[in-house]
Amino acid sequence: MDSQSKNVNRLSALPPALAEAAAGRRLAKRERTRRQVIAAAIGVLTQRGSALATMQEIAAAADVAPATLYNHFRTKDDLLQGVALHVAETLCRRIAESYAHVRDAAERMAIGNRRYIWLAEQSPGWALLVLDIGLAVPPLAQRVTQDARADLRLGLKQKRFRVASEAAAMDLISGTVSQAMRSVALGLAPARHDVAVAATVLRGLGMAADEALALARRPLPEFPAAG
Amino acid sequence: MDSQSKNVNRLSALPPALAEAAAGRRLAKRERTRRQVIAAAIGVLTQRGSALATMQEIAAAADVAPATLYNHFRTKDDLLQGVALHVAETLCRRIAESYAHVRDAAERMAIGNRRYIWLAEQSPGWALLVLDIGLAVPPLAQRVTQDARADLRLGLKQKRFRVASEAAAMDLISGTVSQAMRSVALGLAPARHDVAVAATVLRGLGMAADEALALARRPLPEFPAAG
Repeated sequence: MDSQSKNVNRLSALPPALAEAAAGRRLAKRERTRRQVIAAAIGVLTQRGSALATMQEIAAAADVAPATLYNHFRTKDDLLQGVALHVAETLCRRIAESYAHVRDAAERMAIGNRRYIWLAEQSPGWALLVLDIGLAVPPLAQRVTQDARADLRLGLKQKRFRVASEAAAMDLISGTVSQAMRSVALGLAPARHDVAVAATVLRGLGMAADEALALARRPLPEFPAAG
Repeated sequence: MDSQSKNVNRLSALPPALAEAAAGRRLAKRERTRRQVIAAAIGVLTQRGSALATMQEIAAAADVAPATLYNHFRTKDDLLQGVALHVAETLCRRIAESYAHVRDAAERMAIGNRRYIWLAEQSPGWALLVLDIGLAVPPLAQRVTQDARADLRLGLKQKRFRVASEAAAMDLISGTVSQAMRSVALGLAPARHDVAVAATVLRGLGMAADEALALARRPLPEFPAAG
């Protein structure tokens, strides 16, 4: 039952690469408070898990009164949903931007899949939290799979992929990558698991073994720190 | 947050095909009580989810005193682990028995994967519970993936599969099948999703598209009700 606590020494909040630029942006006070609460919630949720973390702990960590917290999020479910959507939006936008210049759908697919697995390696506690919340929040799952679905459709149009059904291909992509993030976050995966998993997914999408592996081995485009 | 409650009308406890023979077996009283508690816990957990169900509710549903419940399971975590392992043991044994006569590893893999997805269609609430508990209980995940790992290794020996790495292949199998069970249980999957998913997994394991689809389309061997 305690798979998260085993990772307590490796826990960190947001992956450094996803940390947000704090300075240089002027936000309305309400929005600033909301972001402060979400940042604190990510820290508490990562350490305590979504089942155990309380609204009181999160208010204390955010240095706001409980009434202020409830003014932004009526219930713990609202807060989890807010955190999940904020994380998904930040994460998906940054990852999609990092490979916006790549035209080949197969290469786009490999980069996206490897990047999620890389994030799980950078920040295991954060990855387990995202997987935990993601399962409970359908809008998060929808947002996170939206870019993969676009790349899948592009690959079918480019005749790079050939699949039994789009629904099965989507379950292959999101299921395999989630499971690989979990394996990496729990310390169960071998080195270069991201490459092997990306190649395996490309094969499941109908590519030849050698081409899939060669594509999955290409250097990842840069993922610049937020700034 | 509420994905389970949307399915409340489709909830059922154990899939009928997994129901256990109640009569005809003599068990020691302690073991009988334990099974009675586990059966009641499955019902309560399926309806309330593992986060909300309380030990009090489970004791009441099992018609035992709370002290008796705590005599069998010291904590809620112990109980969840007990339920998970009981379900995994029953489930995996029955599924493995149903295709014990099949020699070809590729066909064994397709049957096993389709059978899990079939169970999610039969009993959506039960499937969501298994996925929910399974994530939190590493011994369950290990037990459930043990037969797939054996079939994967057999398929490599029989030269039916060719994979980038065993770890990536296992993440492919368990990730894709879990995600497909979730899609089916949530009512999001098209008809014959089990066939498309099994074919997609076989392709990810290195088989040619046509052969993968032909294998995945074969009639499933019988899955006799417990009796």
